[in-house]
Amino acid sequence: MIQECVELAVKPGAEAAFEAAVAAALPIFRRARGFRGAELHRVIETPGHYRMLINWETLEDHTVHFRGGPDFAAWRALVGPHFAAPPAVTHATLAARFTAA
Amino acid sequence: MIQECVELAVKPGAEAAFEAAVAAALPIFRRARGFRGAELHRVIETPGHYRMLINWETLEDHTVHFRGGPDFAAWRALVGPHFAAPPAVTHATLAARFTAA
Repeated sequence: MIQECVELAVKPGAEAAFEAAVAAALPIFRRARGFRGAELHRVIETPGHYRMLINWETLEDHTVHFRGGPDFAAWRALVGPHFAAPPAVTHATLAARFTAA
Repeated sequence: MIQECVELAVKPGAEAAFEAAVAAALPIFRRARGFRGAELHRVIETPGHYRMLINWETLEDHTVHFRGGPDFAAWRALVGPHFAAPPAVTHATLAARFTAA
Protein backbone atom coordinates (compact mmCIF):
# COMPACT_ATOMS: atom_id res chain seq x y z
CA MET A 1 0.00 0.00 0.00
CA ILE A 2 1.18 3.50 -0.93
CA GLN A 3 -0.12 6.79 0.39
CA GLU A 4 -0.12 9.71 -2.01
CA CYS A 5 -0.05 13.07 -0.22
CA VAL A 6 -1.16 16.14 -2.14
CA GLU A 7 -0.59 19.57 -0.61
CA LEU A 8 -2.68 22.12 -2.42
CA ALA A 9 -3.89 25.69 -2.19
CA VAL A 10 -7.14 26.84 -3.70
CA LYS A 11 -8.06 30.32 -4.83
CA PRO A 12 -9.60 32.60 -2.19
CA GLY A 13 -13.31 31.93 -1.94
CA ALA A 14 -13.09 28.70 -3.96
CA GLU A 15 -13.12 26.38 -0.97
CA ALA A 16 -16.73 25.19 -1.26
CA ALA A 17 -16.50 24.76 -5.03
CA PHE A 18 -13.24 22.83 -4.67
CA GLU A 19 -14.68 20.51 -2.03
CA ALA A 20 -17.73 19.91 -4.22
CA ALA A 21 -15.44 19.15 -7.17
CA VAL A 22 -13.52 16.58 -5.15
CA ALA A 23 -16.78 14.94 -4.13
CA ALA A 24 -17.92 14.94 -7.77
CA ALA A 25 -14.69 13.14 -8.69
CA LEU A 26 -15.41 10.20 -6.41
CA PRO A 27 -16.59 7.94 -9.27
CA ILE A 28 -13.30 8.64 -11.08
CA PHE A 29 -11.30 7.39 -8.10
CA ARG A 30 -13.59 4.48 -7.41
CA ARG A 31 -13.02 3.08 -10.87
CA ALA A 32 -9.26 3.71 -10.78
CA ARG A 33 -7.06 0.62 -10.61
CA GLY A 34 -5.66 0.12 -7.12
CA PHE A 35 -7.64 2.92 -5.42
CA ARG A 36 -7.98 2.12 -1.71
CA GLY A 37 -9.69 5.17 -0.27
CA ALA A 38 -8.91 8.84 0.32
CA GLU A 39 -9.31 11.67 2.79
CA LEU A 40 -9.50 15.40 2.18
CA HIS A 41 -8.26 17.57 5.04
CA ARG A 42 -8.48 21.34 5.55
CA VAL A 43 -5.23 22.72 6.95
CA ILE A 44 -6.04 24.88 9.95
CA GLU A 45 -3.00 27.16 9.87
CA THR A 46 -3.39 28.29 6.26
CA PRO A 47 -6.83 29.24 4.88
CA GLY A 48 -7.46 27.68 1.47
CA HIS A 49 -4.79 25.03 2.01
CA TYR A 50 -5.77 21.36 1.78
CA ARG A 51 -4.05 18.02 2.24
CA MET A 52 -5.44 15.08 0.30
CA LEU A 53 -4.30 11.61 1.33
CA ILE A 54 -5.00 8.93 -1.25
CA ASN A 55 -4.25 5.26 -0.71
CA TRP A 56 -3.18 3.13 -3.67
CA GLU A 57 -2.35 -0.52 -3.86
CA THR A 58 0.96 0.25 -5.64
CA LEU A 59 2.94 3.36 -6.57
CA GLU A 60 2.37 2.62 -10.26
CA ASP A 61 -1.40 2.58 -9.76
CA HIS A 62 -1.06 6.33 -9.26
CA THR A 63 2.01 7.36 -11.22
CA VAL A 64 1.49 5.18 -14.29
CA HIS A 65 -2.09 3.97 -14.52
CA PHE A 66 -3.97 6.95 -13.08
CA ARG A 67 -1.75 9.78 -14.32
CA GLY A 68 -1.35 8.08 -17.68
CA GLY A 69 -4.96 7.08 -18.05
CA PRO A 70 -7.94 8.90 -19.56
CA ASP A 71 -9.47 9.84 -16.19
CA PHE A 72 -6.57 12.06 -15.13
CA ALA A 73 -7.70 14.84 -17.45
CA ALA A 74 -11.25 14.48 -16.12
CA TRP A 75 -9.99 14.80 -12.54
CA ARG A 76 -7.91 17.87 -13.35
CA ALA A 77 -10.80 19.43 -15.27
CA LEU A 78 -12.90 19.19 -12.11
CA VAL A 79 -10.43 20.46 -9.52
CA GLY A 80 -7.73 22.28 -11.51
CA PRO A 81 -9.68 25.53 -12.04
CA HIS A 82 -9.74 26.01 -8.26
CA PHE A 83 -5.98 25.63 -7.69
CA ALA A 84 -4.08 28.75 -6.67
CA ALA A 85 -0.76 26.99 -7.39
CA PRO A 86 0.41 23.64 -8.74
CA PRO A 87 -0.14 20.95 -6.10
CA ALA A 88 2.85 19.30 -4.43
CA VAL A 89 2.68 15.52 -4.53
CA THR A 90 4.69 12.93 -2.62
CA HIS A 91 4.21 9.23 -1.95
CA ALA A 92 4.96 7.28 1.18
CA THR A 93 5.00 3.79 2.60
CA LEU A 94 3.69 2.98 6.05
CA ALA A 95 6.49 2.43 8.57
CA ALA A 96 4.31 1.96 11.66
CA ARG A 97 0.74 2.37 12.83
CA PHE A 98 -0.13 3.12 16.45
CA THR A 99 -3.59 2.72 17.87
CA ALA A 100 -4.83 4.56 20.93
CA ALA A 101 -4.59 2.61 24.17
CA MET B 1 -11.00 15.13 15.53
CA ILE B 2 -7.81 16.89 14.44
CA GLN B 3 -4.97 15.45 12.41
CA GLU B 4 -1.49 16.72 13.20
CA CYS B 5 0.90 16.31 10.26
CA VAL B 6 4.62 16.38 10.98
CA GLU B 7 7.05 16.56 8.06
CA LEU B 8 10.51 15.65 9.25
CA ALA B 9 13.95 14.76 7.98
CA VAL B 10 16.33 12.55 9.90
CA LYS B 11 20.11 12.48 9.72
CA PRO B 12 21.62 10.19 7.08
CA GLY B 13 21.84 6.67 8.45
CA ALA B 14 19.58 7.44 11.41
CA GLU B 15 16.43 5.97 9.86
CA ALA B 16 16.36 2.72 11.87
CA ALA B 17 17.22 4.47 15.14
CA PHE B 18 14.56 7.09 14.51
CA GLU B 19 11.89 4.50 13.77
CA ALA B 20 12.86 2.60 16.92
CA ALA B 21 12.64 5.85 18.92
CA VAL B 22 9.14 6.51 17.63
CA ALA B 23 8.10 3.00 18.59
CA ALA B 24 9.64 3.49 22.04
CA ALA B 25 7.55 6.64 22.44
CA LEU B 26 4.28 4.80 22.00
CA PRO B 27 3.51 4.73 25.76
CA ILE B 28 3.97 8.51 25.83
CA PHE B 29 1.31 8.96 23.17
CA ARG B 30 -1.02 6.37 24.61
CA ARG B 31 -1.19 8.20 27.89
CA ALA B 32 -1.59 11.60 26.22
CA ARG B 33 -4.99 13.26 26.62
CA GLY B 34 -7.02 13.00 23.43
CA PHE B 35 -4.58 10.76 21.51
CA ARG B 36 -6.53 8.83 18.85
CA GLY B 37 -3.83 6.93 16.97
CA ALA B 38 -0.91 7.72 14.67
CA GLU B 39 0.88 6.57 11.55
CA LEU B 40 4.51 6.97 10.58
CA HIS B 41 5.17 7.09 6.83
CA ARG B 42 8.46 6.99 4.91
CA VAL B 43 8.41 9.45 2.02
CA ILE B 44 9.52 7.65 -1.12
CA GLU B 45 10.86 10.62 -3.08
CA THR B 46 13.24 11.88 -0.37
CA PRO B 47 15.43 9.44 1.59
CA GLY B 48 15.37 10.16 5.30
CA HIS B 49 12.13 12.12 5.04
CA TYR B 50 9.10 11.03 7.10
CA ARG B 51 5.52 12.10 7.54
CA MET B 52 3.88 11.40 10.87
CA LEU B 53 0.10 11.71 11.06
CA ILE B 54 -1.26 11.92 14.58
CA ASN B 55 -4.95 12.05 15.41
CA TRP B 56 -6.11 14.06 18.41
CA GLU B 57 -9.55 14.60 19.82
CA THR B 58 -9.04 18.40 19.83
CA LEU B 59 -6.40 20.86 18.62
CA GLU B 60 -5.63 21.80 22.21
CA ASP B 61 -4.91 18.19 23.12
CA HIS B 62 -1.78 18.61 21.01
CA THR B 63 -0.92 22.29 21.16
CA VAL B 64 -1.70 22.91 24.83
CA HIS B 65 -1.84 19.67 26.77
CA PHE B 66 0.82 17.62 24.97
CA ARG B 67 3.27 20.40 24.06
CA GLY B 68 2.82 22.04 27.43
CA GLY B 69 2.95 18.84 29.43
CA PRO B 70 5.83 16.92 30.99
CA ASP B 71 5.89 14.22 28.30
CA PHE B 72 6.80 16.58 25.47
CA ALA B 73 10.41 16.76 26.65
CA ALA B 74 10.51 12.97 26.91
CA TRP B 75 9.23 12.64 23.32
CA ARG B 76 11.77 15.14 22.01
CA ALA B 77 14.57 13.45 23.96
CA LEU B 78 13.76 10.20 22.16
CA VAL B 79 13.42 11.46 18.59
CA GLY B 80 15.07 14.89 18.55
CA PRO B 81 18.68 13.62 18.33
CA HIS B 82 17.82 12.03 14.96
CA PHE B 83 16.34 15.17 13.35
CA ALA B 84 18.32 16.74 10.51
CA ALA B 85 16.16 19.87 10.70
CA PRO B 86 13.31 21.22 12.82
CA PRO B 87 10.10 19.39 11.93
CA ALA B 88 7.29 21.23 10.16
CA VAL B 89 3.93 20.80 11.90
CA THR B 90 0.44 21.60 10.69
CA HIS B 91 -3.01 20.57 11.83
CA ALA B 92 -6.05 19.76 9.76
CA THR B 93 -9.71 18.91 10.03
CA LEU B 94 -11.33 16.22 7.92
CA ALA B 95 -13.39 17.64 5.06
CA ALA B 96 -14.36 14.34 3.42
CA ARG B 97 -13.52 10.65 3.52
CA PHE B 98 -13.89 8.40 0.47
CA THR B 99 -13.88 4.64 0.67
CA ALA B 100 -12.98 2.41 -2.23
CA ALA B 101 -15.89 1.12 -4.26
